[in-house]
Amino acid sequence: MSGGKLLAPEELKRKLLEIGPERYHHKHPFHLLMHEGKLTRAQLQAWALNRYYYQSRIPVKDAIVLSRSTDASFRRAWLKRILDHDGAGDHPGGIEKWIRLAEATGLKREEVISERNVLPGVRYAVDAYVDLVSQRTFLEAVASSLTELFSRDLISLRIDALRAHYPWLESGLAYFTARLTQAPEDAAFALDYVTRNAASREQQESVINALRSKCDILWAQLDAIYFAYVTPGWAPPGVLATEV
Amino acid sequence: MSGGKLLAPEELKRKLLEIGPERYHHKHPFHLLMHEGKLTRAQLQAWALNRYYYQSRIPVKDAIVLSRSTDASFRRAWLKRILDHDGAGDHPGGIEKWIRLAEATGLKREEVISERNVLPGVRYAVDAYVDLVSQRTFLEAVASSLTELFSRDLISLRIDALRAHYPWLESGLAYFTARLTQAPEDAAFALDYVTRNAASREQQESVINALRSKCDILWAQLDAIYFAYVTPGWAPPGVLATEV
Repeated sequence: MSGGKLLAPEELKRKLLEIGPERYHHKHPFHLLMHEGKLTRAQLQAWALNRYYYQSRIPVKDAIVLSRSTDASFRRAWLKRILDHDGAGDHPGGIEKWIRLAEATGLKREEVISERNVLPGVRYAVDAYVDLVSQRTFLEAVASSLTELFSRDLISLRIDALRAHYPWLESGLAYFTARLTQAPEDAAFALDYVTRNAASREQQESVINALRSKCDILWAQLDAIYFAYVTPGWAPPGVLATEV
Repeated sequence: MSGGKLLAPEELKRKLLEIGPERYHHKHPFHLLMHEGKLTRAQLQAWALNRYYYQSRIPVKDAIVLSRSTDASFRRAWLKRILDHDGAGDHPGGIEKWIRLAEATGLKREEVISERNVLPGVRYAVDAYVDLVSQRTFLEAVASSLTELFSRDLISLRIDALRAHYPWLESGLAYFTARLTQAPEDAAFALDYVTRNAASREQQESVINALRSKCDILWAQLDAIYFAYVTPGWAPPGVLATEV
């Protein structure tokens, strides 16, 4: 982590935005196969089931962020994320919508919620995200959410690709349509927060590194899914080898 | 986790020993390539460098185990593990010996110790081990060390294979020769401890599951190394792609 001169806010934003093309998981071969329509139903099941574990921990990590802020206005803004994921009243949240996506692939709700067949590699990566948000600085915890800067393009491409190649998934797409508007709002708030609050070059570099770390966490999940369910014969011991 | 009748100590031991053939990492394809002499020097470097991260966290996890015991006789027995890894006085410990192994592959000591090029997937798996030992019951923390029940056979096979196929590694093999006697002693103590102290069927099942979890952690490390450095083109973004 180099010292050096404080970056202008626009310069910090530019550096953060550069991380997307460099290492966001839109380039992961599992996503490429998905978007080309080359995944089987069983592979989409494996993806939905494993990625559920990530979804399930998002409100946990957001509650940790909330618990680390003593600023009520920050907490009011951040709380929206938990509402978006957990739902409120009659409105299903992102987790419920993700379960419906998993059901659209043919999985049973109970099987998904049980987290029984989550790959160890996915579990470790997601738990590393919760650890990051708990253990690094508050600014890094906020910055690690900034992958949402890159998610809208991926999600709009994905919606089109899923509709075109896997029409039987249609009933499960509500998660993604909601994220098209939620993610950019959240990202704008977090980006503004970190650029205003990173007060030294060292803090600015820590913010950049936190976003890189989060990209690594997303990427590692897809590596685990790819090698267990796309590459033949690579499911780790104890994991269902072909169908989930 | 099923309830049910308490297992006899011999029955619990049998169930624990069965986990080795089922999911210990001696069967991982990376080890198979190693033992057949099919890894390149660069791949052995990647293995030594990444596995160093695991070695470096072993005394940390053993110190956590130590910190969770209020029984001085247990602590006296467990302390040996930290001495074995960290060394004492003029005697180099396992970590120093591992660094010498890494040097024998052609890596610089500083490069290894910096932990700079550790794969994200390896880091998450190792950190999951430290989390397991911190967060699950004390009995599970002890039981997770029981992969040492299976390590002697793997290590003696490995010593022969490394000598035969990679003779330039000879100067780095002291780590393994020491583990041939250390690991079985440690495993015998831990096995005796868990079989005597698992007082309900539920605790016995938790011990069995802790050993399975630890096997998963070892396996996931090799998955990450294999796919970054054996399968062409799979190094995650930000990781050196060919040579370390």
